[in-house]
Amino acid sequence: MTAPFRIAIAGLGTVGIGLVRILQTHPEMIAARAGRPVEIAAVSARSKDKDRGADLSAYAWEDDPVALAKRPDIDLFVEVMGGHEGAAREATEAALKAGHHVVTANKALLAHHGNAIAAAAEEAGVALRFEAAVAGGIPVIKALTEGLAGNEIRRVLGVMNGTCNYILTKMEETGQGYNALFEECARLGYLEADPNLDVGGIDAGHKLSLLAAIAFGTAVDFDAVELEGIQSITLEDIRQAADMGYKIKLLGVAQMTGRGLEQRMSPCLVPDTSPLGQLDGGTNMVVIEGDAVGQIVLRGAGAGAGPTASAVLGDIIDVARGFRLPAFGQPAASLRKVRAARAAVPAPYYLRMALADKPGALAKIAACLGEAGISIDRMRQYGHQEGVAPVLIVTHKTTRSALDEAVAAFSDTGVLEGTPVAIRIENV
Amino acid sequence: MTAPFRIAIAGLGTVGIGLVRILQTHPEMIAARAGRPVEIAAVSARSKDKDRGADLSAYAWEDDPVALAKRPDIDLFVEVMGGHEGAAREATEAALKAGHHVVTANKALLAHHGNAIAAAAEEAGVALRFEAAVAGGIPVIKALTEGLAGNEIRRVLGVMNGTCNYILTKMEETGQGYNALFEECARLGYLEADPNLDVGGIDAGHKLSLLAAIAFGTAVDFDAVELEGIQSITLEDIRQAADMGYKIKLLGVAQMTGRGLEQRMSPCLVPDTSPLGQLDGGTNMVVIEGDAVGQIVLRGAGAGAGPTASAVLGDIIDVARGFRLPAFGQPAASLRKVRAARAAVPAPYYLRMALADKPGALAKIAACLGEAGISIDRMRQYGHQEGVAPVLIVTHKTTRSALDEAVAAFSDTGVLEGTPVAIRIENV
Repeated sequence: MTAPFRIAIAGLGTVGIGLVRILQTHPEMIAARAGRPVEIAAVSARSKDKDRGADLSAYAWEDDPVALAKRPDIDLFVEVMGGHEGAAREATEAALKAGHHVVTANKALLAHHGNAIAAAAEEAGVALRFEAAVAGGIPVIKALTEGLAGNEIRRVLGVMNGTCNYILTKMEETGQGYNALFEECARLGYLEADPNLDVGGIDAGHKLSLLAAIAFGTAVDFDAVELEGIQSITLEDIRQAADMGYKIKLLGVAQMTGRGLEQRMSPCLVPDTSPLGQLDGGTNMVVIEGDAVGQIVLRGAGAGAGPTASAVLGDIIDVARGFRLPAFGQPAASLRKVRAARAAVPAPYYLRMALADKPGALAKIAACLGEAGISIDRMRQYGHQEGVAPVLIVTHKTTRSALDEAVAAFSDTGVLEGTPVAIRIENV
Repeated sequence: MTAPFRIAIAGLGTVGIGLVRILQTHPEMIAARAGRPVEIAAVSARSKDKDRGADLSAYAWEDDPVALAKRPDIDLFVEVMGGHEGAAREATEAALKAGHHVVTANKALLAHHGNAIAAAAEEAGVALRFEAAVAGGIPVIKALTEGLAGNEIRRVLGVMNGTCNYILTKMEETGQGYNALFEECARLGYLEADPNLDVGGIDAGHKLSLLAAIAFGTAVDFDAVELEGIQSITLEDIRQAADMGYKIKLLGVAQMTGRGLEQRMSPCLVPDTSPLGQLDGGTNMVVIEGDAVGQIVLRGAGAGAGPTASAVLGDIIDVARGFRLPAFGQPAASLRKVRAARAAVPAPYYLRMALADKPGALAKIAACLGEAGISIDRMRQYGHQEGVAPVLIVTHKTTRSALDEAVAAFSDTGVLEGTPVAIRIENV
C-alpha cells in the first residue's frame, strides 16, 4: 500500500458531512479501490463549535478556507461550500495555485468561471473534477468524457433540478397550484436561499452549460443559456398537457446546430410514456444521444448528502488512482468558442392564452399565426368566463423566432387578455 | 501530440467493422480526446476476401488472430471474435503475454476464465477492459468501478438480454405465443448460433457474473449463477401478471447476503410502473443500488454495431489516456471467493398450476403451502377445462427453498397436472 492520499474539505454542510461519514464508514473499501488510503487531513467551515453529528476531532481545523486550500500537507482540496464568488472561488484558485488537485460540487462557480479555472488547473498540472456539480449522484460527466468518448454527441437533455420536478409532479398529483407548492418546498428546505436559482431554472442552467461544454468541446458559456423558469406554469397547463399525452418538465437541451450551439433550460411538454415523462418527484435524469451509441438514459438522485458525496468521492478516488483528464475532457485552450443559436431546431409548440369576448377574436389570432408561417395542429376554445375565453393551440413544427413574431403580433389585435404562455413540445 | 496509439482488431463482424467505421469517421475527435491519435495497425478475420463494406486496405492482415495478438507493432489488442474457448481465448492470452493491453467484448470468455485472464493482465502490467461485454453501449462497468467507487454496493439488477426482452414485450403487445416469437427472432437474426444462450438466460448470466464480481469485489463465479430461461413463460402468465400490475422480465439480480453471494438470472414479475417494468423491446437496463447514492438506473442499447463499438472505443481511449485499473476494479488476487447463496432473500412468488377435477384439490395444494410455512396473498381458480382447473396463487414473502419444498409436496397430492410455474416477484 502506497502513501495515504490526503484531502481537505471546505464546507461542512450536508454534503461535506456526508463525505466525512462515508470516509469514516468505509476506509478499507475505499483504500482497496483507490489503491491507497484516503485520509482527511483538515477541514474548515463557518463555525467550529456547531454540532454536526460527526466526530471531526482527528482533523486539523482552519477557520479560513483559503488557508485550508494552501496547506502543504494535502494532496486534494474539496470545495463544498457553494457560491460562485467570494470564499469558494478564492479557495479554489488558491488550492490550484498551491499545486493541489480540486474536486468541487459548485456548478455556479464553474458555470461562471469554469474556463479560467480549468486553465489554471492545467497550468498547475493538477486535476479539477466536478461530477457532483451536475445531476448529483449520477455519474454523467464520467459517462460523457470517458465511457462515451468514442461518440460525436448529438444532443444532451435532462431534468436536472429536483425541486422543480417535485413541484410540477405534485401539481399534477394533488391539484395544488404552483404557489402552494412553492411554499411547501420553502418549508421543507428544498429551495436555495435565493429560490429563483431553482424555480427560475438558473441552477439547472448552470448544470446544462457544463454538460454542453463537455459534450461539444466548447468553452463554457452560461450567459448563452436561454433560461425560463416554471413560475408561470398553471394547473390548467398541466391538465391540458396530460389530456394530450404529455407531461410538463423543466427540461434542459443542448445541441450543436448548423447555426451554433443551442442551450436552453425551459419548461417543455414531453410524451408521458418517455423516460423523461415518467420521471416523478425529485429524481434527475440525463439523456445522452451519440452517433454510435444511440440514446443512453441515466437516472438517479440529483441532490442530498449521500448522492452528492458519492459523486465527490468517485472523483477523489479517480484522482488518487492517478487518472488525469482535462476538466472538460480536452485541454481548456482547445475548447471552441462558438456562436449561440437561439432555439434553432423547429418544434411544435403549445400555446395558451385568454381572448376578449369580441367577434372574430379567434380569427385574428389564427391570422397572426398564419402570417408568421405557423400552421395549427389542434385548437380548442372554451366557454367565456367573465368576458374572457381560454384558448389552447398546438402548432405544427415551427421555430421559436416565428412563434415570437406571432405572439408579438397578438398584442396588436386588441383581443388578447394578459400574456400568452408558449411551451415547446419536445418529442424525446 | 504524442506518438499514435496502435491497435489490432481480431474479428471483423458487426462490432469489428463498427469500430473500424468510427475510427475512420472521427480520427481528429478521438485524437483530441485520447490525447494522441488512435490508429488501426492490423486486423484479422476468418476470410480475407469477404466484402465487409469498409476499406481495410491500409491495415496489415493476419489470417491467424494469435499471430495478430503477438505483433510487436501494436499497443492494444481488440478481441471481438466471440466464443469462450479456442481462438478468442488463445489470442487474448497471447496478447497479454506479449505485453499488449486487451479490450474485449467477450462476456462468455470472461465469465469462464475472467479470474485467470485478469491475473495474467496484472502480471503483464497491462490493462484488460471489457465495457462492451455487459449491456452493450451502457457504460455500466465504468459507473460501478469508477463513478460509484465510493459506495458499498447493495444490489445490482438488470435486463441484459435484448432478445428475451423483445420476445416478452412482443408476447404482451401482439398476443403471439413464445414459439412464434422465437421463430421470428431466428428469422431476424436476433438469436445466437446456440439460441439457448439467449432464451436460456446464459448470455445474460455471463454478464451478471461479471457485474457481481465488480460490484462486490468477488472472484467471477459464473457456475454459481442460478439460471432460468424464458422458455416456459406463457401468454397466460403475461396476461395474469399484467392484470395484477406487473410485467415479466428476464431479470438478473446480484446481492451480497448474510449467507453468501446471491446471483440469479430468471424471469421475474416487476411492477409495471417501475423503470424496469417500462423497458420495452430490445433495450437493456441496469439498476445499481449503493449505500450512499441510492438507486442509479442506466438504460441504453444492449447490442448492435454502434453501441458495442462505442463501448469498445471508450475502453481504448481510456487506455490510450493512460488510465490503469485492475480489470475488476481491484487486484485479481484480492477478489474474494465467497459462498453462493441460492435466492436467500425472501420474496413473494407467483404460482401457476393446473389441478385435476377432484374434490378437495385446492385444499390439498393450500395445505402443502401452509406446511412449508407459506401464506397466500391472493388465489384464483378458473373454470374446469377438459377436467383440469387452472389455478393462480400469489404468496406472501417466502424463500425459494420453502417454495421448492411446497412444490415438491404438490406432486404427492395426486391432484396436480403437469409442472407448476413459479415466478419470483421483485418489487424494484
